Amino acid sequence: MGNTFGHLFRITTWGESHGGGIGVVIDGCPPNLELTEADLQPELDRRRPGQSSIVTPRKESDQVQILSGTFEGRTLGTPISLVVKNEDQRSEAYTEMATKFRPSHADYTYHAKYGLRAWPGGGRTSARETIGRVAAGAIAKKLLRERWGVEVLACVTQVQAIKAEVDPDTFTLAQVESNIVRCPNSAVAAEMIQLIEQRRGEGDSVGGIVLGVARNVPAGWGEPVFDRLEADLGKAMLSLPATKAFEIGSGFAGIQLTGRQHNDAIRNVDGKVRTLTNRSGGVQGGISNGETIHFRIAFKPVATVMHEQETVDVSFANTTLKGRGRHDPCVLPRAVPMVEAMTALVLLDHALRHQAQCAH
Amino acid sequence: MGNTFGHLFRITTWGESHGGGIGVVIDGCPPNLELTEADLQPELDRRRPGQSSIVTPRKESDQVQILSGTFEGRTLGTPISLVVKNEDQRSEAYTEMATKFRPSHADYTYHAKYGLRAWPGGGRTSARETIGRVAAGAIAKKLLRERWGVEVLACVTQVQAIKAEVDPDTFTLAQVESNIVRCPNSAVAAEMIQLIEQRRGEGDSVGGIVLGVARNVPAGWGEPVFDRLEADLGKAMLSLPATKAFEIGSGFAGIQLTGRQHNDAIRNVDGKVRTLTNRSGGVQGGISNGETIHFRIAFKPVATVMHEQETVDVSFANTTLKGRGRHDPCVLPRAVPMVEAMTALVLLDHALRHQAQCAH
Amino acid sequence: MGNTFGHLFRITTWGESHGGGIGVVIDGCPPNLELTEADLQPELDRRRPGQSSIVTPRKESDQVQILSGTFEGRTLGTPISLVVKNEDQRSEAYTEMATKFRPSHADYTYHAKYGLRAWPGGGRTSARETIGRVAAGAIAKKLLRERWGVEVLACVTQVQAIKAEVDPDTFTLAQVESNIVRCPNSAVAAEMIQLIEQRRGEGDSVGGIVLGVARNVPAGWGEPVFDRLEADLGKAMLSLPATKAFEIGSGFAGIQLTGRQHNDAIRNVDGKVRTLTNRSGGVQGGISNGETIHFRIAFKPVATVMHEQETVDVSFANTTLKGRGRHDPCVLPRAVPMVEAMTALVLLDHALRHQAQCAH
Amino acid sequence: MGNTFGHLFRITTWGESHGGGIGVVIDGCPPNLELTEADLQPELDRRRPGQSSIVTPRKESDQVQILSGTFEGRTLGTPISLVVKNEDQRSEAYTEMATKFRPSHADYTYHAKYGLRAWPGGGRTSARETIGRVAAGAIAKKLLRERWGVEVLACVTQVQAIKAEVDPDTFTLAQVESNIVRCPNSAVAAEMIQLIEQRRGEGDSVGGIVLGVARNVPAGWGEPVFDRLEADLGKAMLSLPATKAFEIGSGFAGIQLTGRQHNDAIRNVDGKVRTLTNRSGGVQGGISNGETIHFRIAFKPVATVMHEQETVDVSFANTTLKGRGRHDPCVLPRAVPMVEAMTALVLLDHALRHQAQCAH
Repeated sequence: MGNTFGHLFRITTWGESHGGGIGVVIDGCPPNLELTEADLQPELDRRRPGQSSIVTPRKESDQVQILSGTFEGRTLGTPISLVVKNEDQRSEAYTEMATKFRPSHADYTYHAKYGLRAWPGGGRTSARETIGRVAAGAIAKKLLRERWGVEVLACVTQVQAIKAEVDPDTFTLAQVESNIVRCPNSAVAAEMIQLIEQRRGEGDSVGGIVLGVARNVPAGWGEPVFDRLEADLGKAMLSLPATKAFEIGSGFAGIQLTGRQHNDAIRNVDGKVRTLTNRSGGVQGGISNGETIHFRIAFKPVATVMHEQETVDVSFANTTLKGRGRHDPCVLPRAVPMVEAMTALVLLDHALRHQAQCAH
Repeated sequence: MGNTFGHLFRITTWGESHGGGIGVVIDGCPPNLELTEADLQPELDRRRPGQSSIVTPRKESDQVQILSGTFEGRTLGTPISLVVKNEDQRSEAYTEMATKFRPSHADYTYHAKYGLRAWPGGGRTSARETIGRVAAGAIAKKLLRERWGVEVLACVTQVQAIKAEVDPDTFTLAQVESNIVRCPNSAVAAEMIQLIEQRRGEGDSVGGIVLGVARNVPAGWGEPVFDRLEADLGKAMLSLPATKAFEIGSGFAGIQLTGRQHNDAIRNVDGKVRTLTNRSGGVQGGISNGETIHFRIAFKPVATVMHEQETVDVSFANTTLKGRGRHDPCVLPRAVPMVEAMTALVLLDHALRHQAQCAH
Repeated sequence: MGNTFGHLFRITTWGESHGGGIGVVIDGCPPNLELTEADLQPELDRRRPGQSSIVTPRKESDQVQILSGTFEGRTLGTPISLVVKNEDQRSEAYTEMATKFRPSHADYTYHAKYGLRAWPGGGRTSARETIGRVAAGAIAKKLLRERWGVEVLACVTQVQAIKAEVDPDTFTLAQVESNIVRCPNSAVAAEMIQLIEQRRGEGDSVGGIVLGVARNVPAGWGEPVFDRLEADLGKAMLSLPATKAFEIGSGFAGIQLTGRQHNDAIRNVDGKVRTLTNRSGGVQGGISNGETIHFRIAFKPVATVMHEQETVDVSFANTTLKGRGRHDPCVLPRAVPMVEAMTALVLLDHALRHQAQCAH
Repeated sequence: MGNTFGHLFRITTWGESHGGGIGVVIDGCPPNLELTEADLQPELDRRRPGQSSIVTPRKESDQVQILSGTFEGRTLGTPISLVVKNEDQRSEAYTEMATKFRPSHADYTYHAKYGLRAWPGGGRTSARETIGRVAAGAIAKKLLRERWGVEVLACVTQVQAIKAEVDPDTFTLAQVESNIVRCPNSAVAAEMIQLIEQRRGEGDSVGGIVLGVARNVPAGWGEPVFDRLEADLGKAMLSLPATKAFEIGSGFAGIQLTGRQHNDAIRNVDGKVRTLTNRSGGVQGGISNGETIHFRIAFKPVATVMHEQETVDVSFANTTLKGRGRHDPCVLPRAVPMVEAMTALVLLDHALRHQAQCAH
């Protein structure tokens, strides 16, 4: 259970790291959208391993195939099935994983829950699972852009203690894609890359922060009281592997202020209702207010490190385990398209829900 | 839409601040649980206004009534309908609210979404809406305690810059309830209360942090990949009014560490699989690992302040608005039972989902 | 579980026969619909007991109250909570029911499922449970009529072997309401009434057929492959108490024909795509085709009869049970508003789902 | 929308007749079930075209592949993705279908709903869509048999006017599979086959009735008030292509009886609560009572006939259309495994729901 996301634009993902492939079924996509694999592949290329020296060197081309739901290059309104085959399945590197639980991975919890687990490559807990999300998110991004003019974007703003100040309203995709760490500030990006390289050399890993934004979202999206826009964004982000925290607008820092300081004054600017500050993060009472939506997600440092660590085996005997083979020091650059995808999935679902109830 | 929470223990809340009442329908409650109003009222009393000098002085007794779903003091397995009447409805204090949007409230966004809004008392955006959650949460807490030995608890750990160090494993309900701010450290609590009193005197307000914990949760609860336990907890917390951030385990601070530093080593301790640290926060890969679940939520400062603020009216003309009448300087003490309720709702739902799929 | 119906116009019903009342919460109602109790009461009056000599003499005024979701006579877009109090609760007539299972009722199955049951008045299995459906259905009917021009109607066409031929396209509400059995053919209605009176005199009961129709439904509503319009209509009708069968269009009789005979030829009639016959019943491939939707539901004879019948008690010892007290010989006239309500709920939900995905 | 079925054992189907394939994703399957393609293929072989002279001659091997959700021959508890490739895609026979709507097919309604349609082979409206249901149903059947001892079975009982009397409690799979029409009475089967051959020779087609049964279902499955077992069975059956009617137990015929005649007397038989008759069809008040569940479904005559019929083209101009190429005179034998699959899906979902709420 738990592999479906969304109400009206609804995705169901499937697949293990070393099984027959990874995929997603999308139900509820509006008909008559132009769609071919060429719309999806660029996002998958941003997500795939082996892009640069600071991410996992696993070799996967991650070529996506559309198996259903389109006809003559247009969506039919029927389920869209997308599949990516698994290619690089070297199981020899993983044999210890068959009998030992990796610390701060999900090995033990899957064992405790299901009684068995697909240990090669981490099975369902592999980051490969996000392929389906990113592919579906590419469709959602296209719909949001074409039908509502909404722009969804993300970037890396912090790696360990190295921070970049990024303005949610103005950074561009070109800036994000200008360096391998996907931080729009190229000077800070260089520092980040250096730190990641260093940690990789130490057989260690890093975590950091991804900033997600959505611009031009019309006022009115969000479904209180439970399906508030920020609640669904939070859930979406915290469903990504390795995430530990989510904040929107002023977030944790906002509690330092008093109410008087924190409130976003409202003013009519050229006939449009605007706020003079955006501590609300584009959402008030669970509903978008027309300002840029901006939020930050903490990704913990990658759990696989090239050092001996204390753990237990499947018979619960104490032992140790050391990461071997491919080393992925930093998930952040590849997390950027994942964050964008989940953002787009949440927003499109809310756009359709709003259209269902409130279209006149 | 969006007023139902949960899959198997499923609540639907209803009600506006000044309408016929506030309530909740619970579907999926297991049968044969002993249940009367006496099980619910104490939690509602912790939530209700007018408890102390640092929260809103609105006068409500918030007496709950069970209208269905029980027979001779036991749950039937049928829907449980709970209702609380609205009493203190002084509409005169609110007349300006009819025509002006309060800054950093949901007035404008409800207007934009629905085209009309119940302005007295904030309508559905009032904190009264959480009555249904707290009442349903009381049932969930009871079930978790009686059937699985799970303990759910929350407390205030920060008000503006004043912080208390609180150990998620050991603080007690008695400590939490020993002072009006619901911080288990009484020395820090006194400082917090003083600060809140000061802000109230200034016609201003504060925000802060609530810590939520769940102890004795068995390993195995959580439904990856989307309905991870932390994702559902995050959504639950971010669906509470005034929340801006959620973090579990090491949260945002965890990104300062390397993977080697951050990982929770695993060891067999007296026949049980334990982690030596708990940076994971009791959840790994979306599934509980048997350690204490602990997380923190940021509540922004209360938006209503007794000062003139810039805004627009319903015809989008620029104007100002000043809070009048009852002043609520701090939502934190009343947020504690809300956090506990939402935690219990998430955990019980996952307990039942786990039982459905994995019971042998 | 199982007390919520619909996806976008979503109702959750609650209540037992002899508890604190019966009600429903509606989530997803579009905002800005004029709505007061006066819109709902007439449908509840058609459903309530004691209307005539051929239905149950239980005395209930069934006055509905709107507790939330409206403001100044208009819907807010927030949940609408509707409540009807229980009045006539004579428990003395029911004491044997506490310890014996009534044949062809749900007493034994509720006992088997939940381990306990609210025996007074049948608890949740009482026909009173349908109050919430009828009240919510009144709102759905109003929306369908005002926003899409759709007319929903039902009538009785058969009581035991007495049949009326009724044209789905032309019978009127006035005809239906012109007699107490709600059969639009008044001559046949008189025969039906006579038969029901006779059965009542014998301490026995009857079943029969209700015809449901929806006129002016636009082509395009329905969500294949599982949520076909006829599948959702079928489920809706079979969720009503005492139903045993559902057929749409040509139904069971259609199998006597060959494909060539059965097919509905298509022709452009005054610029509109029409079928020359309507054996499809207004639905093809799960989607409305613009023709009148028509279907029939079998209601079994009422299970409570004034005769000794073989059964077992709660300790599974063999015994007998005889119906006493109020005798309801025929549920059909009261089933008519129930069928209309469920039809309207299905159609409105599909209207909103269609609007969500296919509005351009 | 509408391509997901079930709550806890939840299937999502995808695929068009002539696209990249047909498939299903199953979420919620319990872990540790032995499962390979060999468990699924026999059911798909019963469903596939070209089995005999009385069904469609389309050539498809329908080889199923498990792409995810198993490891070393056991289910993981993660989503199971099943795919069957499309092979026989002769588009030349279908060219007229591109521009004309086939009478009593879904061509016009898909056009009206989505604005475009995948006309080759009927796209999503092809009976190939049921492959995913049958494959998923095979897993559900296996689980029901192994964990609860439940047996699910179906057979053909009527073709046009030719009827077989079949006892729901005793007919066997071997009897069903002993002839190509899948009627357990071989004498009547021979008549049916003769009639179908005759209709095929006439370029015409037939419809008929399929009987579905489930034996050894424990008392207690079903979720009133909306998700009654018969309501979910009815929806499941009416979601199959070409179905027009569903009845359970006494069905439409039951209305001829009075309540006294119709009621199922209850008696303790060897310590078990039994009913002496089974007019209820194994379900009372929406919950199984431990008796055999039995129901009947009407399948209309196949709509494609080899005769000129009146219709309109995509510009709504009047025209005619004659079926060409492969002729399928009778869907009934292939509907038998479809009915079994949907029955198993409903029952397993309810088994898990019951386990979630009522397991102690």
